[in-house]
Amino acid sequence: MFHVLNNIRVVLVGTLYSGNVGSVCRAMANMGIRDLALAGPQICDDWSEAARLAVHATDILGARRETATLAEAVADCAWVVGTTARGGLYRQHVKTPREAAPELLRLADGGKVALVFGREDKGLLNDEIGQCTHLLRIPAHPDYTSLNLAQAVLLCGYELYCALGAYEPPVEKSPPALAAHKHKLLEKWREMLLLIGFMKEDKADHMMQGVQRIFSRGAYSEDDVAILMGVARQADWAARHGPGAKPKNGGRQ
Amino acid sequence: MFHVLNNIRVVLVGTLYSGNVGSVCRAMANMGIRDLALAGPQICDDWSEAARLAVHATDILGARRETATLAEAVADCAWVVGTTARGGLYRQHVKTPREAAPELLRLADGGKVALVFGREDKGLLNDEIGQCTHLLRIPAHPDYTSLNLAQAVLLCGYELYCALGAYEPPVEKSPPALAAHKHKLLEKWREMLLLIGFMKEDKADHMMQGVQRIFSRGAYSEDDVAILMGVARQADWAARHGPGAKPKNGGRQ
Repeated sequence: MFHVLNNIRVVLVGTLYSGNVGSVCRAMANMGIRDLALAGPQICDDWSEAARLAVHATDILGARRETATLAEAVADCAWVVGTTARGGLYRQHVKTPREAAPELLRLADGGKVALVFGREDKGLLNDEIGQCTHLLRIPAHPDYTSLNLAQAVLLCGYELYCALGAYEPPVEKSPPALAAHKHKLLEKWREMLLLIGFMKEDKADHMMQGVQRIFSRGAYSEDDVAILMGVARQADWAARHGPGAKPKNGGRQ
Repeated sequence: MFHVLNNIRVVLVGTLYSGNVGSVCRAMANMGIRDLALAGPQICDDWSEAARLAVHATDILGARRETATLAEAVADCAWVVGTTARGGLYRQHVKTPREAAPELLRLADGGKVALVFGREDKGLLNDEIGQCTHLLRIPAHPDYTSLNLAQAVLLCGYELYCALGAYEPPVEKSPPALAAHKHKLLEKWREMLLLIGFMKEDKADHMMQGVQRIFSRGAYSEDDVAILMGVARQADWAARHGPGAKPKNGGRQ
């Protein structure tokens, strides 16, 4: 499932801040991408930030390759995907990462794909854009379209990861409550609400419609129904025997 | 279009590092969200990083509210959306930001929605999770599911922004090339390739199928066709008159 991500390389061009390189490593690990190249890095600080911000992704940081130029960093790639926040004549055919992700995964199944990110201050230059087979632009609010470098890497990686379909949401251990159990629950609540004096018999049908609506707002599980059944049993018992005591069946269904 | 984002508040609970607060501000601005609250911040450095990393979003940083507890930070919200990377009994009903985004925008149209993000080291505690009406989990590689705080904010904001449908991709100024123009282009190339001796008449049909396939790989615009037509005209002219000279019509269609 994840093997196609092994054919994705993140290439950072002319990066200025080592902290961003570290944050990129973490974002890559979050999204299952592990191949990092720095093309003509211009790091202006002392690299200590990189390891700090990579956190548990220092292996990616340590395994990075450095090349003088973008051309060298992508020489073994069949597809070179540039990212740009700017417009311009040769940047009009950009796609969003979400649009492009399925195609990029398909291409990565047959050859290396480089995701290329430009300088913090100037992005990718026109001659670097010219080396790209694809261009991406991340949707962002028109008042501030320039994302932090690692944020841009994360979003592109995230869209590829989502397009893989690898994410499996947690499954609730307790199954959805059956109608029959919810029906029994409402009967018990009706009985209890009458007993404790919350409503009188002549208003009960009306009031129980309100209770039923409340119980229908959410997708209750069998565990949820058991808790609500226990509440009614306990209230019933306490009304008969005084507060603090316990019903014989422990209050659970 | 963007007004619904005014009803989204980002709430950071127990944040430790001011740099993350600054990065969150920038990510919020990138996605059009401007309301920031810090609930029980535990900042352990001197705040200088916050402004540096907010870059052009220092207005959001300056306008932040600080409260002692999560309850205070979300008191005026109808919906409280927690984020968690951890599993557990009361965290099984999580949705992905992408699944939840359309519903959250709908809800934000009628009341304030808080997006709540926990501590860098421990996330949200169980009693804080209990205050949430919705829970989100960001899809991430199982080897490293914990995202940097600002990265998590960015992704949730991004999914809301994308669900708004506000992003308008750039439109190419040059329209897609018409079949008639591409046909004319192929005729000119055939003529030129014969003239310069690239192919002989008996192989021309076969060879032109290859050229046609190359010209069909991409979605060419009228400008692209004009460039390729100019190439053929220029090669034709240079073959007749020697290198470096210019054809009378300037080489363009």
